[in-house]
Amino acid sequence: MIKERGLLIVLSGPSGVGKGTVRKELFSQPNTNYEYSISMTTRNPREGEVDGVDYFFKTREEFETLIEQGGLLEHAEFVGNYYGTPLAYVNETLDAGRDVFLEIEVQGAAQIRKKAPDALFIFLAPPSLTELKDRLVGRGTETADVIAKRIATASEELEMMSLYDYVVENDEVTNACDRINAIIKAEHCRRERVEKRYLSMLRGE
Amino acid sequence: MIKERGLLIVLSGPSGVGKGTVRKELFSQPNTNYEYSISMTTRNPREGEVDGVDYFFKTREEFETLIEQGGLLEHAEFVGNYYGTPLAYVNETLDAGRDVFLEIEVQGAAQIRKKAPDALFIFLAPPSLTELKDRLVGRGTETADVIAKRIATASEELEMMSLYDYVVENDEVTNACDRINAIIKAEHCRRERVEKRYLSMLRGE
Repeated sequence: MIKERGLLIVLSGPSGVGKGTVRKELFSQPNTNYEYSISMTTRNPREGEVDGVDYFFKTREEFETLIEQGGLLEHAEFVGNYYGTPLAYVNETLDAGRDVFLEIEVQGAAQIRKKAPDALFIFLAPPSLTELKDRLVGRGTETADVIAKRIATASEELEMMSLYDYVVENDEVTNACDRINAIIKAEHCRRERVEKRYLSMLRGE
Repeated sequence: MIKERGLLIVLSGPSGVGKGTVRKELFSQPNTNYEYSISMTTRNPREGEVDGVDYFFKTREEFETLIEQGGLLEHAEFVGNYYGTPLAYVNETLDAGRDVFLEIEVQGAAQIRKKAPDALFIFLAPPSLTELKDRLVGRGTETADVIAKRIATASEELEMMSLYDYVVENDEVTNACDRINAIIKAEHCRRERVEKRYLSMLRGE
């Protein structure tokens, strides 16, 4: 019998939105049934960070060798350091029928969108919609400058989110986690996925 | 400001699968935030059934007048009685920005799919996948007849579910309800919906 392949879940969003906090909260919950894919980086470990837990810490040479070998699902360079997702772990886990969860920057998510279009892309957004609404229809005490800035930010976010399947507003960490868990649960009920399971069953696979 | 239109949620599935039980459980939960659309019928009330709670009970003449006036979102006839969904309540509730939940037969769901393609269609399936798996790969004690019957049923279900967005197996009522609630929550986070909210906000609507 062919095991159903796991789901690749990509959480991303603008920097500073709280991706790391949401991810940590998700994985601190007792019933999380997806695997976290640890990123690889060439930056130095910070106080308290553990190799193989927070990141896989590598030298520049090791990282560049892996890039050449096609061993990364995505990678990017920030402030002189590489960050990336090792491909082998992701593929092995998906092949074993387990969902894999990535928490990465928007550049990396865009690379994965091209390579794995059937992955699940979740955009974590600051609660700007709600804020924007408050400011626009609110007490009329905001200066034109502040309003213009909020509109510009919202427009940028709108553009960034166009590659994603779902948008989760990070108004509160627990709400954001509830929404992400609902999205993953719902995705497993999508008719196309269930149909595939039926068909392979009927074929006696 | 234009209010976002509510979501039309259609729960259907083969007869006998337990649609009514699941619906009652959903609406007995304290945090249900969608409205149940009560069906209309020409059949006689059963012991304990209340007009306007279980059904709107109508005469054949009243029902047929409503059909002629285009006042039903869907309707069908079973064993000499009409069953249908009054359109006015559904539209008013959706326009007020509230989600509407319908629990109807597959014929009715097919009619709505044509009229309201952006509705959310959930197929409640008997736990036949799991059963089928058990029987096919199980202890080899089933007769060929029993296996053939299970395969025929699964094939029929597979055909029926092709119009739906999601398939929820009714293995246990509470599990089915959890999945349905997750699907509705996820649907509200779909990028297209959030984008629309942003855009109407930016336009100052």
